[in-house]
Amino acid sequence: MQLHSFFNSSTSYRVRIALSLKEIEYETLPVNIRVGEHRAADYVTNVNPSASVPALIDDEFKLGQSLAIIDYLDQKFPEPRLIPLEPTLRARVLEFAALISCDIHPINNLRVLRYLETELGVTPQQKSAWYQHWIAQGMAGVERMLERGDQGPWCFGAQPTLADVCLVPQMSNALRMECDLHLYPRSVAVYEHASKHPAFDAAQPRRQPDYNT
Amino acid sequence: MQLHSFFNSSTSYRVRIALSLKEIEYETLPVNIRVGEHRAADYVTNVNPSASVPALIDDEFKLGQSLAIIDYLDQKFPEPRLIPLEPTLRARVLEFAALISCDIHPINNLRVLRYLETELGVTPQQKSAWYQHWIAQGMAGVERMLERGDQGPWCFGAQPTLADVCLVPQMSNALRMECDLHLYPRSVAVYEHASKHPAFDAAQPRRQPDYNT
Repeated sequence: MQLHSFFNSSTSYRVRIALSLKEIEYETLPVNIRVGEHRAADYVTNVNPSASVPALIDDEFKLGQSLAIIDYLDQKFPEPRLIPLEPTLRARVLEFAALISCDIHPINNLRVLRYLETELGVTPQQKSAWYQHWIAQGMAGVERMLERGDQGPWCFGAQPTLADVCLVPQMSNALRMECDLHLYPRSVAVYEHASKHPAFDAAQPRRQPDYNT
Repeated sequence: MQLHSFFNSSTSYRVRIALSLKEIEYETLPVNIRVGEHRAADYVTNVNPSASVPALIDDEFKLGQSLAIIDYLDQKFPEPRLIPLEPTLRARVLEFAALISCDIHPINNLRVLRYLETELGVTPQQKSAWYQHWIAQGMAGVERMLERGDQGPWCFGAQPTLADVCLVPQMSNALRMECDLHLYPRSVAVYEHASKHPAFDAAQPRRQPDYNT
């Protein structure tokens, strides 16, 4: 397998964690989204019509969108399962993953922050306030969801799931942008637990071949 | 079943289509997000920690996030199946749904547009340009995905799937915001086909009990 990935993209990071947890060997094909390589005609036409990272290549099959890729991997390599089969737990894991991937991450994406700067001319302070606002709103929901289950050490019990796969890159971004996370102790506890896990460690940005390109 | 819904919320609209296609009877519990009812303490604490619509109530089980709700319904009421089981088709449907629900819809959400106005003081022209920009970028990807399959009359063949469930509310929003959709003929064809389907019709905003509240 091959993965089109950018070291600092948190959607790429999600898929790297899933591949790593499942111990699937893959080759990284770096796509530098800072210089727009994800919008190159060849990439968009032949690899990923979403014009984004990540994109998985499994023989002839090319697939974009991190949540679709992780579902695909979970079907093909069910161990360890990241999207549980038991209906209630499955629903909770997918609800949690959607909160992060639909309600938090997209609004603080690189392309959105760039639009704020270049098209709307926001100040660095306004950009930072934007970022912190959506993190604060979203992480409050994340924390409420973790309180409801109140298990640990992972988001939903003894094994990592798609919820942890989504939470860790989001927390990593929030820390990088110097958000105050002391209001979210359960999220921080999961993040710290994950940081000690070799599969999560191997997937992090600074372990990638394109780190700091 | 009961559904906390707002007539003009496109994530509520998605779930209404799914319920309607599966012919599941439900009661609508309106949540007026324009006046912040989704942030009320009782709703957030007892129904939906995401502080958003929609939220499904199935006996004692309460579930937020449209994509998680639709997966839950698809497990419990498999006919007609909206998330296919065949791996390649399933991956394509989930990829398409993620493009709309992660890359397009969140950035043009009510709360984001309000932040632009109230916190950043953008002009009506800047707000409209923002909206059109993300629609143009996202719909180009949607259209490329439909070109790749090139089937019809639905997004992925003879039966509606989660892809159509996500596309129709997104198109409806884009039309309401007067976006130029002539560049996306395949998307328009699916939208027009869906408009003639009774389940899609029953789910649309103007058929809801809280229409224009």
